Amino acid sequence: MCGPMRGAVIGALLYEGRAKTAAEAEVLAASGTIRFSPCHEHSAVGPMAGIISPSMPVFVLKNEENGNHAYSTMNEGLGKVLRYGAYGPDVIERLKWMETVLYPALKKALAKAGRVDLKNIIAQALNMGDEVHNRNRAATSLFYRALAPAIVRTSPQPERAASVLEFINSNDHFFLNLSMAASKVVLDPAAGIKSSSIVTVMARNGTDFGVRLSGTGDAWFTGPAPVPDALFFPGFTKEDANPDIGDSAITETGGLGGFAIAASPAIVQFVGGSSQDALDYTLQMYEITAAENGVYRIPSLDFRGTPTGIDCVKVVEKGILPFIDTGVAHKKPGIGQVGAGVLSAPAEPFEKAVAGLAARLRR
Amino acid sequence: MCGPMRGAVIGALLYEGRAKTAAEAEVLAASGTIRFSPCHEHSAVGPMAGIISPSMPVFVLKNEENGNHAYSTMNEGLGKVLRYGAYGPDVIERLKWMETVLYPALKKALAKAGRVDLKNIIAQALNMGDEVHNRNRAATSLFYRALAPAIVRTSPQPERAASVLEFINSNDHFFLNLSMAASKVVLDPAAGIKSSSIVTVMARNGTDFGVRLSGTGDAWFTGPAPVPDALFFPGFTKEDANPDIGDSAITETGGLGGFAIAASPAIVQFVGGSSQDALDYTLQMYEITAAENGVYRIPSLDFRGTPTGIDCVKVVEKGILPFIDTGVAHKKPGIGQVGAGVLSAPAEPFEKAVAGLAARLRR
Repeated sequence: MCGPMRGAVIGALLYEGRAKTAAEAEVLAASGTIRFSPCHEHSAVGPMAGIISPSMPVFVLKNEENGNHAYSTMNEGLGKVLRYGAYGPDVIERLKWMETVLYPALKKALAKAGRVDLKNIIAQALNMGDEVHNRNRAATSLFYRALAPAIVRTSPQPERAASVLEFINSNDHFFLNLSMAASKVVLDPAAGIKSSSIVTVMARNGTDFGVRLSGTGDAWFTGPAPVPDALFFPGFTKEDANPDIGDSAITETGGLGGFAIAASPAIVQFVGGSSQDALDYTLQMYEITAAENGVYRIPSLDFRGTPTGIDCVKVVEKGILPFIDTGVAHKKPGIGQVGAGVLSAPAEPFEKAVAGLAARLRR
Repeated sequence: MCGPMRGAVIGALLYEGRAKTAAEAEVLAASGTIRFSPCHEHSAVGPMAGIISPSMPVFVLKNEENGNHAYSTMNEGLGKVLRYGAYGPDVIERLKWMETVLYPALKKALAKAGRVDLKNIIAQALNMGDEVHNRNRAATSLFYRALAPAIVRTSPQPERAASVLEFINSNDHFFLNLSMAASKVVLDPAAGIKSSSIVTVMARNGTDFGVRLSGTGDAWFTGPAPVPDALFFPGFTKEDANPDIGDSAITETGGLGGFAIAASPAIVQFVGGSSQDALDYTLQMYEITAAENGVYRIPSLDFRGTPTGIDCVKVVEKGILPFIDTGVAHKKPGIGQVGAGVLSAPAEPFEKAVAGLAARLRR
């Protein structure tokens, strides 16, 4: 396990009360008594280290057309947070507040507000400068607007409601975990189609980059994860960066994030790019996808639908790799986020996946 | 006075309790006992009919650098509303609710929250698909996010706070009156510079289109207001449309709205335009402006500052007329909004203004 994931595991064991110190948690984590499993094997997603431990509340998303569900944790904010491998007392305290204040407030508000249409929010956010991976300001705002009255009406005390509103308002990435789960819940039903070369999962664990295809069952095809190009926070450089990590590339797998970056030119500015570069990245992604989204559209491309459904065969044939937006974690446990940037997926997992699909077709 | 303004005057007299019926109000309005005066002559702005009557609460904006203030009413929402000339019982009831519930809630919340930086909100909104004239979804969201916790904390009852949040959430144009007043408060200090051909006001009253220059004192230069090209609501056509109306062209005067339409390609779609058209309209406005804004920037133009400070001499010399986004009112009183669209300002007021400035320089 890479540094930030080790840090997040330490934090989760402290949060769960399974260890009293980081040293104790490390021993426990290495003892073989803790079971680890990828989120994606449980219809779940988590950004960066992506740790979901038994007591963490999750959002439950429903795909109304197919009846399946997806799950994600709630976003903690930026900086020193569990998903970037930090595990100090402030991190654990925040997680406890999220469990005991934020989660009950959202649960009651959602019950009162009824159905919240995330597809509609994402479609609007793409018209408002978000690609809902590295920019979630608009989607967070729209989600906040939709729920705030119900949060106020169902809260036992106004002060508690205000603290929940402030927590969401303080974090423009609050929606990220929802855009990830919204992508997951749409992609899961695409799995298991015989002969299909469509990519249903791209995920990174900070060491390897893995993909799954619709036509190759539960198999993971992996290769080493690259280190992203990034805008680093003051005092940090690419030397500090962990290789790419997290389930958030599920947004690109669903045609959002880097695939929709034309909607969000502010992101390529991070790494010195122009708004034309942002258009070009999205235009390239049409080359490796099977369809254009009928609901998610890009204003600066005359409301063309986002490039959706990565065809692994096209990726390998054309040598065009998926373009991914990402956050960057420090490679050591306990430090946290050091930047944000972009990268192209590595070729190896896609090459192996095509070979895997071919082998299956020859059977 | 044009139809929608007559409707709004009737509504304001009913709201103020100065008349019991529309017929009574019409007689009173025509009697000579009611004084009418342009908002702009009182550091104020109002969209469309722009009626501000004595009991209506207003936002008070401060230009911190110059110390001056500007005022605007609060936005009522869409459809049958006073500013579009409607005056039915629902319109009056809503205005009373705004006076007795919305205004006290916002006043207390603003006192608690302290300074709200509208310049910052507008700068962000331009990165989020708004040009803050015909699109205010992002700016409304950001304003809502900034104030919601304080509204909750200062409200006597949670239900009252929730009703205020719902009112703002139901109206993506809530911020419009603030973007107008923010433009007004910035432009007013530009008035009174000797020889300056910079336009400090563009306004329409549904009959005439008027401009004021920095170097020509209180003089208005006017010409007939044109009828906008628009997307009309079902059942209405250009035949129903009143000529262009309202103080909202103060946003264009300040480099926003139609001048920043490259930030908001959804608006040119209303009238069949492409995202390239939106870029082109903004690029043209650089031809007739004196500067580029250092804070308000357009993502799709590589974050170039918005074209700011219309130079009346350039307008007349180059024959390029200011491009304005606008709502469209029915030409008869009492009906309300029938569409939204765009138009070019008429040439006559600008030609007269240049002549007026020249006459003053010859004195």
